[in-house]
Amino acid sequence: MKRTEIGERIERLQARLGASGVQAALLLMPVDIFYFTGTRQNSALWVPAKGEPVLLVRKSLVRARAEGLIGDIRPFPSSKELSGLLGSEGDKVGMTFDAVPVAQYSWYSKVLPGRSFVDVTMIVRELRSVKSPAEIEMLRFSAGKLASVFREVPDFLKAGMREVDLAAEVEFRLRRIGHEGYVRMRAFNQELFGGMAVSGGAASYGFFDGAVTGQGLSSASPQGASLDAIRENEPVLVDFAGVFNGYIVDMTRMFVIGSLDAELRRAFDVSLEIQEAVRRAMVPGAIGEEVYRQAAAMAESAGFGGNFMGMPGEQSRFVGHGVGLELDELPVLAQGFAMPLQAGQVVAVEPKFVIPGKGAIGIENTFVVTENGGERLTELSDEIVVL
Amino acid sequence: MKRTEIGERIERLQARLGASGVQAALLLMPVDIFYFTGTRQNSALWVPAKGEPVLLVRKSLVRARAEGLIGDIRPFPSSKELSGLLGSEGDKVGMTFDAVPVAQYSWYSKVLPGRSFVDVTMIVRELRSVKSPAEIEMLRFSAGKLASVFREVPDFLKAGMREVDLAAEVEFRLRRIGHEGYVRMRAFNQELFGGMAVSGGAASYGFFDGAVTGQGLSSASPQGASLDAIRENEPVLVDFAGVFNGYIVDMTRMFVIGSLDAELRRAFDVSLEIQEAVRRAMVPGAIGEEVYRQAAAMAESAGFGGNFMGMPGEQSRFVGHGVGLELDELPVLAQGFAMPLQAGQVVAVEPKFVIPGKGAIGIENTFVVTENGGERLTELSDEIVVL
Repeated sequence: MKRTEIGERIERLQARLGASGVQAALLLMPVDIFYFTGTRQNSALWVPAKGEPVLLVRKSLVRARAEGLIGDIRPFPSSKELSGLLGSEGDKVGMTFDAVPVAQYSWYSKVLPGRSFVDVTMIVRELRSVKSPAEIEMLRFSAGKLASVFREVPDFLKAGMREVDLAAEVEFRLRRIGHEGYVRMRAFNQELFGGMAVSGGAASYGFFDGAVTGQGLSSASPQGASLDAIRENEPVLVDFAGVFNGYIVDMTRMFVIGSLDAELRRAFDVSLEIQEAVRRAMVPGAIGEEVYRQAAAMAESAGFGGNFMGMPGEQSRFVGHGVGLELDELPVLAQGFAMPLQAGQVVAVEPKFVIPGKGAIGIENTFVVTENGGERLTELSDEIVVL
Repeated sequence: MKRTEIGERIERLQARLGASGVQAALLLMPVDIFYFTGTRQNSALWVPAKGEPVLLVRKSLVRARAEGLIGDIRPFPSSKELSGLLGSEGDKVGMTFDAVPVAQYSWYSKVLPGRSFVDVTMIVRELRSVKSPAEIEMLRFSAGKLASVFREVPDFLKAGMREVDLAAEVEFRLRRIGHEGYVRMRAFNQELFGGMAVSGGAASYGFFDGAVTGQGLSSASPQGASLDAIRENEPVLVDFAGVFNGYIVDMTRMFVIGSLDAELRRAFDVSLEIQEAVRRAMVPGAIGEEVYRQAAAMAESAGFGGNFMGMPGEQSRFVGHGVGLELDELPVLAQGFAMPLQAGQVVAVEPKFVIPGKGAIGIENTFVVTENGGERLTELSDEIVVL
């Protein structure tokens, strides 16, 4: 990342703070700090609406100074010094209330007396959702790496192996080409270990906010691959995120050893039709929830309305999610998401169906919003791989 | 986990709430909810000081009912219904302020008018820190699995492979035997992808709250294995957590291809002496910070005071951390930790040294606090493996 790009990000944040009548942002989430400084250390970032940002570092100061692309990087001061350094009484100070714990909020409220704290979650998330050309290149790089591992799946997918064996093979190859492993998610209550390999018709209910959750390995980890064996003539859904230089892309492909049930094949064809409709709709100004409704209507008219995006009765109401430094960024192509799309936003589009007793099926690719519709980053045939 | 064990956990929490004059706890962290119910779904757990707990489930209700070991598990109600269901005006309601985001706190404050919210972080964390016999068996199981992979390291560690290749081999084998992958950490600002494989003498500064952080793969992921090649006659430190049924153990072993520098060997011997002193000190009633100070004094008198627990200038001030469902549980054998140890607490003890230009070296094992001192769970020779 270049110093000029970091400078532009800070300027955009300052403009939004100024327009909202907020005197400064105090950013505490590591991923937000990375975005605005180029370094992810244990630190707090102060960005005044006017003036120079300052990064206060608990650990590691050496590393923050080596990597950080803003001018003022210093040790975290004593709580007495903080108040003199960060604004003044009467200031409105923005924090990301979606993620900052109450204890952090209380501590800063005490050491920065007279400030009123306001929520700038949506400002930060919206700014981060629009990717620069440099970020899109990073995402394209991640996509190329991730697709290269999906391309190898036929080399190691065998009948009789367990879902967790398949997941382990994918994860191993991803790590060897530099996948960073930890997939950041922002939403409280969500967790993900990289992705999932899910086969067959076992019911799969779970907390994970996706169409397919997988059974996981225990009730403590109730999501992703299980110990079940992969059998012939069953759909095998492989859905993984790849993280390189912090940038996440997400994709899903289907595999079958033998032949696929005709109803599942029909559902898969519908998922491709929905993906193409969503891709075309991904232009600046489009409304996320309208795109979702169009997708849900297509599923409905194809006879798969009750299977779209989840187990019947526990269906998710989205068809795509923003990706970038986190797996659950803005925008969301979802019920209730009324903000217009912007050029440069990047969305993983994943129309999927769950047919109880038969299994989960669908597609997922990561696209950039452009004037010509979604531009695909994850280059690899969508077709079901038959082994 | 048995229903009776869950019942006992709830009773212990209720007793602590009652003694603190708190009418109920509203638990929102998934890991806390898992501990008190046996199911980790997207949900909120209400535990009144007197009466029956209720689990309110957003997703998945089906799975929460299949796994949960409390009686009252129901769909998350409308915000209007919540207030009638959860206590009454004037109640003091406990939340874990260390982890619950401001936005969650604000929402519950609004829908539960008249309640005052208080912090029960230390109550919950302290209860969770004392493991039952059933939990210790789970941890022993995790330790056996983790040790089995450490035992295989000599089979695949080769000169010239990159740190990330070594990490990938360890992770692959762990996954194949059922490691759940996602290592829960509680502290705001911490993140970990499983562990680290770190070799040689490159300086390693980083945010991670440990003795050794590793360079990682990018400034976005500045921790753990890097792309550097592992060379002969360099210390290779392998430090991984294993997660099985949610229960985490942590261990570190040293490897060298060729022969080890004499100063590093001396430091390693000191780490074994410190480990044994800490192990003996791990009896009920011992004070965490006194155990740490004794360890630091031993490092100092051996001439390695400036290298103990981190890069000179950025040393951590602890020698052991609680483990269980999270990697950073109580107790901590650390500066500032004055609570007496309790029988059944489980601690990863990790005396380590970083010698700039030469590398990181040390040992780590997971022990249970007993009347006879620490009882080791991670059974495997401590000796440096020379290849």
